[in-house]
Formats: sequence, C-alpha cells, structure tokens
Amino acid sequence: MKPILVLKIGGNVVDSPELLEKVLLRFSKIKSDKIIVHGGGKIASDLSLKLGVSPKIIDGRRVTDAETLKIVVMVYAGLVNKTIVSVLQKNNSNAIGLSGADGNFFKTKKRISQIDYGFVGDAFDSSVNEKFLFELLGNNLLPVVSSITHDGDGQLLNTNADTIASSIAVALSKTRSVKLIYCFEKSGVLENQNDENSLIENLTYQKFLDLKISGAISSGMIPKLENVFSSLKSGVQSVLICGATAFANSDSIDEIKATRFTF
Amino acid sequence: MKPILVLKIGGNVVDSPELLEKVLLRFSKIKSDKIIVHGGGKIASDLSLKLGVSPKIIDGRRVTDAETLKIVVMVYAGLVNKTIVSVLQKNNSNAIGLSGADGNFFKTKKRISQIDYGFVGDAFDSSVNEKFLFELLGNNLLPVVSSITHDGDGQLLNTNADTIASSIAVALSKTRSVKLIYCFEKSGVLENQNDENSLIENLTYQKFLDLKISGAISSGMIPKLENVFSSLKSGVQSVLICGATAFANSDSIDEIKATRFTF
Repeated sequence: MKPILVLKIGGNVVDSPELLEKVLLRFSKIKSDKIIVHGGGKIASDLSLKLGVSPKIIDGRRVTDAETLKIVVMVYAGLVNKTIVSVLQKNNSNAIGLSGADGNFFKTKKRISQIDYGFVGDAFDSSVNEKFLFELLGNNLLPVVSSITHDGDGQLLNTNADTIASSIAVALSKTRSVKLIYCFEKSGVLENQNDENSLIENLTYQKFLDLKISGAISSGMIPKLENVFSSLKSGVQSVLICGATAFANSDSIDEIKATRFTF
Repeated sequence: MKPILVLKIGGNVVDSPELLEKVLLRFSKIKSDKIIVHGGGKIASDLSLKLGVSPKIIDGRRVTDAETLKIVVMVYAGLVNKTIVSVLQKNNSNAIGLSGADGNFFKTKKRISQIDYGFVGDAFDSSVNEKFLFELLGNNLLPVVSSITHDGDGQLLNTNADTIASSIAVALSKTRSVKLIYCFEKSGVLENQNDENSLIENLTYQKFLDLKISGAISSGMIPKLENVFSSLKSGVQSVLICGATAFANSDSIDEIKATRFTF
C-alpha cells in the first residue's frame, strides 16, 4: 500500500488563485490516499481590516478575540475550504472539506497562558480521531482540512495549520506510512533568507541546531522545523519542505528540489 | 427501520443563538438517522452592509454577484455551518458539515434566465448523490447541509435552502422512508398572517389552491408549499411545517402543533 500523502499549503499559496489551481491540479494527479491542510493567508487579515476589527498582537503573536474567531471561521472553514474543494471536484478528486468539529475529528484545548491569546486551540496527544480520517479515505474521499478546531464543548478554536498537518501525519502513521509535504512560497529551508540558491537539500537535526545557534534560520521557521523533527521522531516516514511552483511543476514527488530531513 | 428525518431550520432560527441551541438540543435527542439543512439568516445581509456590498434585488429576488457569493459562502458554509456542527458535537451528536461540493453530493446548474441572478444554482432531477449521504448515515454521522452547492466545474453556487431540503428528502425516499420538517419562526401555515391562532393543522392540496386564489397565503409561502406538495408527490412520507419553539419544546414529533399535509 502506498504511503498516505499529507500536503500542507501555506498562506501565500492560498492568496494566489492561479498558483493554488496549479498546485491542486498537480495534487489531483497523485495516485495515493491523500489529505490537504490549509490556513487562510491574507484574506482573513484583509477582511478584518475592512470590518474595522484591528489585529491584536502580543509579543509577536496574534490574539484571536471573539470577532476575529468569527472571521477566521468564515474565511478558513468557509471561503478558502469550499474554494479548494470545488476546484478539486473539477479535477475529479472527490474532496470533502472539514474543520476539526466535523466528525469530531480534531479536538484541541483552549490555550491557557499568562497572556490571553483568546480562542486559540492547542493540540494534545489524542487530538486526532484517525479512525474518522481512515473511514473517509476508505470511501475514496480526499479530506481538505481547515485550521479551525473545537474543544468538544461547543467552542470553535483557531489552530496553527502546521500543527494540524503534523498531528494528522503522526496520528495516521500509527497505522500506515505517511509522507508529509509543506508547500509554500520559498523553495525550502534557505541558509541565507535572501538567496533562493542557498537551499539546504538535506537538513540533519544537528545542522538544524547549528543553524539555530548561528541565527541563520528565521524565527518563523524555527517552530516549523521543530515540528518537522518531532513528526519524524513520532513515526512519520518522510517530511519535505518545498516551493509551491516546484511542487506544481514536478513529474514525481521524489524529484522535487526541496529540503528533506534526516535525524 | 425508522424513517430518516430531514430538518430544515429557517433563517430566523439561525439568527437567534438561544433558540438555535434549543432546537439543536431537541434534535440531538431524536433517535433515528437525520440530516439538518440550514440557510444563513440575516448574518449574510449584515456582513454585506458592513462591507459596503449593497444587495441587488431584481423583481423581488436577490442577485448573487461575485462579492455576494463570497459572503454567503463564508457565512453559510463557514460560520453558521461550523457553529451548528460544534453545538451538535457538544450534544454528543456526531455532526459533519457539508456544502454541495463536499463529496460532490449536491450539484446544481447556474440559473439561466432573462434576468441575470448571478451565481445562483438550480437543482435538477439527479442533483443529489444520495449514496454519499447514506455512507455518512451508515457511519452514524449527522450531515449538516448549508445552502451552498457547486456546478462540478469549479463554481460554487448559492441555492435555496428549502429546495435543498426537499431535493434531499426526495432523493433519500427512493430507498428509505423520509420525514421532512420545516422549522421556522411562525407556528405553521396561517390562514391569517397576523393571527398565530389561525394555524391550518391539515392542509390539503385543494385547500392550498383555494387559499392561493383567495390571496390568504403570503407570496413567500407559495413556493414553499408548492415544494411541499411536490415532495409528497415524489415519495416523501410526510411533511410538517412548525414553529421552532414548538419543535424545541416537543416530547414527540407526532404531537407538535404544526401544519401537516395531505394530497
């Protein structure tokens, strides 16, 4: 049985309809069980601005107040999710859009910390109901997962899309082989942020630690990479970080110019 | 095997969070296969106003231009749908939210008429993929259907929620018995619009035709009732139009004070 492919598409891909269509068309042609995870890109911020809901940032992190939660639910679980599903259907991929509340398949806990981040949900060990995902895959459906989860007690929660992708990959890998692909605007992990030619094609954990100490890796990339190594440690077969255009133009996943990882 | 229950909840119910919670709590307690269909209430109009997208009405009918479509997808398939799903999950009902694009289960055709209604989808005979709904019901899931459909060619479409409810009821009734309930702000079909005591408890097709001629039935109610009689003719076991409060407070569906129909 072929590995399950979990593809996370980044916000910048969602923001570009042409690129998104190309990525989805390429994805549709892959013959294996597969799942897409997406966030929402700039659409949610643009909508907030138009509605006069000003973004609250504390210590560099966004706060999801009640009004912001409504906006991200509308944009992520509504507009972006259904747009992706309808494009995949056009490509003859039988997609089904999900938030974590649907089928109760992704439960999180509202973040408790000294800073009140609002309606933000953090994943825990048994967050993912993989049985539900296997049922969908078994019915030849392609789950399209937005980064909205719930607490099981009637509260929707905003959750980091990278975390959702890695949690799903880890949960499924208890039963099947899973490949996890992060597809975004850069060509992978760069040694020099301003030079697309400085792609690191194979990143070991030791090299990651070195780059972290030297400051070569951007602060935004650090949690993403910690997520990657943690997924590998927890049983995910392989992880790949690549550019959306490289993904869209690839003939084979194995040949994409990207960052691959080894412990 | 008990009949499948298809419940359509009206916009005014969606607009009142307390009433909506009560209706969903009552619904959760019903022990049979069931499906909810919902529209979006005033939330979409309010959001349009805030965003400066002015409603376009031609001959009394709303036009869904590109901007309005984005709004209804966000509100119906996003905010309202996921709110209902998360409340049902709290009630231990394993709900799953759907648009017609999800699982390709409700396809429509963009309306072609002399007046351009924009991105509005009309149902046709084979619009509903009932196999998909039976799969979900077979997995003990409770489909929560928003009034957004697709054309199968990448276009989402705004579709009348009453039509979606009756089309689903008719499609399922080819295989199983189906009861269809419309639950809204009035107590049923009234002989006098201003008098809640003028409820018609049993409406025959002949009486409907008489009331239509006498002008006693409001213009908005006529397509709803034509839908009802057409559903009954097409095999739906029973149809009931009732008030949301009566539904929420009922001990048994059969005892709800409501309008029932016979040909």
